[in-house]
Amino acid sequence: MDWFIAVPVLGIVGLLFAVGTYLFVLRYNPGNERMRLIASEIHKGAMVFLRREYQVIAIFMIVVSSLLAVFVSPYTALAYLFGGLSSMLAGFFGMKAATRSSGRTCQGAIDGGRPRALFIAFMGGSVMGITIAALGVFGVGVLFLITHDPVVITGFAFGASSIALFARVGGGIYTKSADVGTDLVGKVEAGIPEDDPRNPGVIADNVGDCVGDTAGMGADLFESYVGSVIATIALGATGKEPFKLMLYPILLIALGLIASMLGVLSINLFKKIKPQSALRFTIYVSGVIFIVAAYLASKMLFGDLKVFISLVAGLVVGVLIGIESEYFTSGRPIIELAHASESGPATTLITGLAIAFQSTILPVITIALGVVVAYYFSGLYGVAISAVGMLATIGVVMSTDSYGPIADNAGGIAEMSHAGPEIRKITDELDALGNTTAAIGKGFAIGSAALTALALFSAYQQAVGLSMINLAAPLAVSGLFIGAMMPFAVASMTMKAVGRAANKMVAEIRRQFKEIKGLLDGNAMPDTGACIDIVTKAAIREMLLPGISAVVVPLVVGLLMGTEALGGFLAGATVSGLLVGVFMANGGAAFDNAKKWIEGGNLGGKGTPVHAAAIVGDTVGDPLKDTSGPSMNILIKLMSIVSLVTAPVLVKYGPRIAEFIKGLL
Amino acid sequence: MDWFIAVPVLGIVGLLFAVGTYLFVLRYNPGNERMRLIASEIHKGAMVFLRREYQVIAIFMIVVSSLLAVFVSPYTALAYLFGGLSSMLAGFFGMKAATRSSGRTCQGAIDGGRPRALFIAFMGGSVMGITIAALGVFGVGVLFLITHDPVVITGFAFGASSIALFARVGGGIYTKSADVGTDLVGKVEAGIPEDDPRNPGVIADNVGDCVGDTAGMGADLFESYVGSVIATIALGATGKEPFKLMLYPILLIALGLIASMLGVLSINLFKKIKPQSALRFTIYVSGVIFIVAAYLASKMLFGDLKVFISLVAGLVVGVLIGIESEYFTSGRPIIELAHASESGPATTLITGLAIAFQSTILPVITIALGVVVAYYFSGLYGVAISAVGMLATIGVVMSTDSYGPIADNAGGIAEMSHAGPEIRKITDELDALGNTTAAIGKGFAIGSAALTALALFSAYQQAVGLSMINLAAPLAVSGLFIGAMMPFAVASMTMKAVGRAANKMVAEIRRQFKEIKGLLDGNAMPDTGACIDIVTKAAIREMLLPGISAVVVPLVVGLLMGTEALGGFLAGATVSGLLVGVFMANGGAAFDNAKKWIEGGNLGGKGTPVHAAAIVGDTVGDPLKDTSGPSMNILIKLMSIVSLVTAPVLVKYGPRIAEFIKGLL
Repeated sequence: MDWFIAVPVLGIVGLLFAVGTYLFVLRYNPGNERMRLIASEIHKGAMVFLRREYQVIAIFMIVVSSLLAVFVSPYTALAYLFGGLSSMLAGFFGMKAATRSSGRTCQGAIDGGRPRALFIAFMGGSVMGITIAALGVFGVGVLFLITHDPVVITGFAFGASSIALFARVGGGIYTKSADVGTDLVGKVEAGIPEDDPRNPGVIADNVGDCVGDTAGMGADLFESYVGSVIATIALGATGKEPFKLMLYPILLIALGLIASMLGVLSINLFKKIKPQSALRFTIYVSGVIFIVAAYLASKMLFGDLKVFISLVAGLVVGVLIGIESEYFTSGRPIIELAHASESGPATTLITGLAIAFQSTILPVITIALGVVVAYYFSGLYGVAISAVGMLATIGVVMSTDSYGPIADNAGGIAEMSHAGPEIRKITDELDALGNTTAAIGKGFAIGSAALTALALFSAYQQAVGLSMINLAAPLAVSGLFIGAMMPFAVASMTMKAVGRAANKMVAEIRRQFKEIKGLLDGNAMPDTGACIDIVTKAAIREMLLPGISAVVVPLVVGLLMGTEALGGFLAGATVSGLLVGVFMANGGAAFDNAKKWIEGGNLGGKGTPVHAAAIVGDTVGDPLKDTSGPSMNILIKLMSIVSLVTAPVLVKYGPRIAEFIKGLL
Repeated sequence: MDWFIAVPVLGIVGLLFAVGTYLFVLRYNPGNERMRLIASEIHKGAMVFLRREYQVIAIFMIVVSSLLAVFVSPYTALAYLFGGLSSMLAGFFGMKAATRSSGRTCQGAIDGGRPRALFIAFMGGSVMGITIAALGVFGVGVLFLITHDPVVITGFAFGASSIALFARVGGGIYTKSADVGTDLVGKVEAGIPEDDPRNPGVIADNVGDCVGDTAGMGADLFESYVGSVIATIALGATGKEPFKLMLYPILLIALGLIASMLGVLSINLFKKIKPQSALRFTIYVSGVIFIVAAYLASKMLFGDLKVFISLVAGLVVGVLIGIESEYFTSGRPIIELAHASESGPATTLITGLAIAFQSTILPVITIALGVVVAYYFSGLYGVAISAVGMLATIGVVMSTDSYGPIADNAGGIAEMSHAGPEIRKITDELDALGNTTAAIGKGFAIGSAALTALALFSAYQQAVGLSMINLAAPLAVSGLFIGAMMPFAVASMTMKAVGRAANKMVAEIRRQFKEIKGLLDGNAMPDTGACIDIVTKAAIREMLLPGISAVVVPLVVGLLMGTEALGGFLAGATVSGLLVGVFMANGGAAFDNAKKWIEGGNLGGKGTPVHAAAIVGDTVGDPLKDTSGPSMNILIKLMSIVSLVTAPVLVKYGPRIAEFIKGLL
């Protein structure tokens, strides 16, 4: 077991790799004074949001860890804090890197054109990607070195989940209310271009891109990553060869981390080719290295390939869901949707919703088949391993994801610093690619969330000692119904939250245009800080209700209706969350891309009624794809993990409460 | 048992009651020549659609009954044809009454004002309501008299389901494509009022109201009604006192039929009061009579009230879901939605979707609690009885439902025959009430569909001999996922179908406006038949894919993945269908009513940008509430009943196929 120390050490190596990349990016020329000023405002805005968000989360974490210490175990409470702090650290560091890289990406476009800009943006994004992967390997490695008790290790995943919840929901509300509010007054009412420096909301909008797509997505994937590994450990602990089965997922993510670092470095080989292919190739490089290494590791550890096949099933599911998302958000459906805009906004919406409904069919079948295959070869453990397989190379996948907001912000900085149309053209191109990686990333995130939730769901069953969740029993059916309703409830809360927060933003921007003399003529500076403040406060307030519901409702169901009903509840929530999540992610992206296709000069292009109809679709799709949809990922994982962590409490107090209720009747 | 002959006889009495009501309405003055002409065109159009639809259905029924005769039993095949023909007869007769009543309702408004118009419209609607209730009592009564074999009796429900599927989906596509197509060219492009006789699509639009809301709704509720009774019989057959348990639901619907007839007659007492209260009171009269009678029957049959409590649970669920639907489609949420239209169509849509998501919370909790209570007192049998309780007074509930399209068409006839504004005001008022009863009816329909589907689901488990559907087993989980996806797939198909059919309608109306000289000046007649023909053909073609999927997919899942996976599949489909169905029904109605509230002079009223934004919402909501949403009811019931009826086939061939697949691997 002595050699196992190498795993946490590898985690530290990964962290050093990320720090090195960060310093490397920092050494690049940050551009002229105006560019530096704007970049620093975005940086400050993002840090303000993170700091305030973390303050609220800290209170939440202290409450939860105290409860864990009393009701479950003090070690679980410590692991919980460790997981939460790791996710916060990743978010903090990744955001720092992202906001520092966007100005440099713009400068890179000026100095060395598209290849250099792509390189800097990708390197900046890889700080978040590798940090997440490295912290996961380090955290799980250290905990496994100290204890082999799944109950303790689960606390780490719960900590990661708590942060993910607030980061995803809060970040999602922030990014969309800033975006919608800024565009409504700026583009629509005042008629000034996107990212125009006269718009008081524009910095908040740019901050939002980082807050939502970098910090939110990072925390989300970190949760899936850690959650899938820990569910596998929990399931492995009761298997035939517990040590090997528990060790295996940790080895896999260690190998995945190495593969990811090599993949990130391989961007040096692909700088000159089409950006789309370059990003894809880094993922392929990591994928191939990982598969070969995992093959050898499986062979050595188990002697056969059964578990390896389950692992590959997960990988294939991940790839297929990505392709399916790409088709529905950039293939023939987009053209169909754009043509629907020719008859106005109503037909745009009807067609877009129909496409969104349709886009759920293949991912659901893919996951259902993946689960069957993974189970066929290695049982419930195989289902959990398939999730690990999908997520092991998260380092490089997340790097391409967080590349997106950097490119997006580089475009904003180019616009605000008047860098000229040829620079803007490069950043636009890189930004468009970012939209595609974001759409694929969203498909990947919800798919991996569903597999992780299923893995956690299996671990939960084991933890509470359920040999079955019988849908022929009405309590389980009622649980299924209530669970399936939860995603609908959270969708409603988050959509309304965006509306309320955006309205406040609209009022503030209108006020500034009216009260600050000379603002629209460019003779006065807007008060960007006021906008950041408003949307920060609104996002933090609005994230509380959905967040607390996700933690409290499963507990209430488990205690009042019993562990079997809670099993039905989790199954219902997972399936409905997956459907709603895919519906929203693909629907939103389809609206966005149909609008972009029209803006590319098709069907009359910008400024036509067709374009106006497409903009309505895009505006509706925005909160779906960036706020409510991503919240589904967290919701289904968090509710599973709450159930898993509180299993001892449910088993202890549930029956007493049931007795009490029966006594009342 | 000799006395049981009274049950089918009561069914015949009910039918005679309906015929008497029909003749009574026919004796009323059908109005002047122009009114008679328009009414007869609507009548002809509706009959053309029904005839063509029934031709296609006849082929489907012959194929299915042949398969049933070979693979299940020839008696089941006969019962299947009996059930199908009953539903067709009810649809045919109810439609005839509805289309004959609308002109007379308009004349009633002229002769005796609002009270007389209300009376005629309600009497016309009651023909459908009582026919459905009477045919159910007659059909189930006759079958139970001949055989006590649930396998045979189930065929009757399957027959009713097959018709319901096509009537609901085909009718839904018809009504919305006619509506959208007619309005897009008439109101929006040509700027002529709604129901203007110059519009070639206007007759098709009026036909559509009957086809969707009368024939479609009738077939839907007939299916629930029959399905819930038959599921109860199937469950009762294996109980402790099978005869009593099988007899009980039949007695209940017999009592419900009597209560409904008395309720319909009670409208004579309420003619002078507010129409809204009058309709409600007829339901209350029936409800009270039914509850008292059911109480006595339960006491006599079982000696205790356990089953009666389960029955009441179903009734309470029905009432609560109605109230919840009413709140979300006419309460505070409507005002909130109307205010969202002040910021344009995008915020209208976001808010409307958020309200639609939110509106699922209470109905799901209501049903989940109802199931738990019903089960607590009398097991799975109690769950089925709760559905019967909700549906027993269907005669009067359906009467208030089919009153709606009659009032709507009376308004159309008033407009087209230039009856004057004071008459139009009366019909508008009655029509507005029809919209409310329609929204409540939709909530009732989906709620009863969910309970019926659960009852059928329980009966299915028993039929295939499943003591459990274990969600800890991945085949059941995969089934759950695929089942939950089905409502999303059917939603997509039906929404796209409306789009395609509406486009054809738009092209035809544009062509007529262009090619028929003098049409817009009122000097030439439009070719209304061509529009009816187009939309009839389109609806029938488009209903096939969703229809056949609903029958084939559960069979494929059952045969390939086994009966337990099919159990998961049905549970997933039921919960997701309920959620999507409520989402669509309430969302659509909320959009509609927010628009109407603005049209009532609020927020600036008609012709303002606020109104324009609300119209976009209403247009998006239309196919949701009238096509895709109602399809969910049928989908979840039909898939359960297909599984129940084909249980012997699944049990026989499923394991062989599983062996074969394992052999391949």
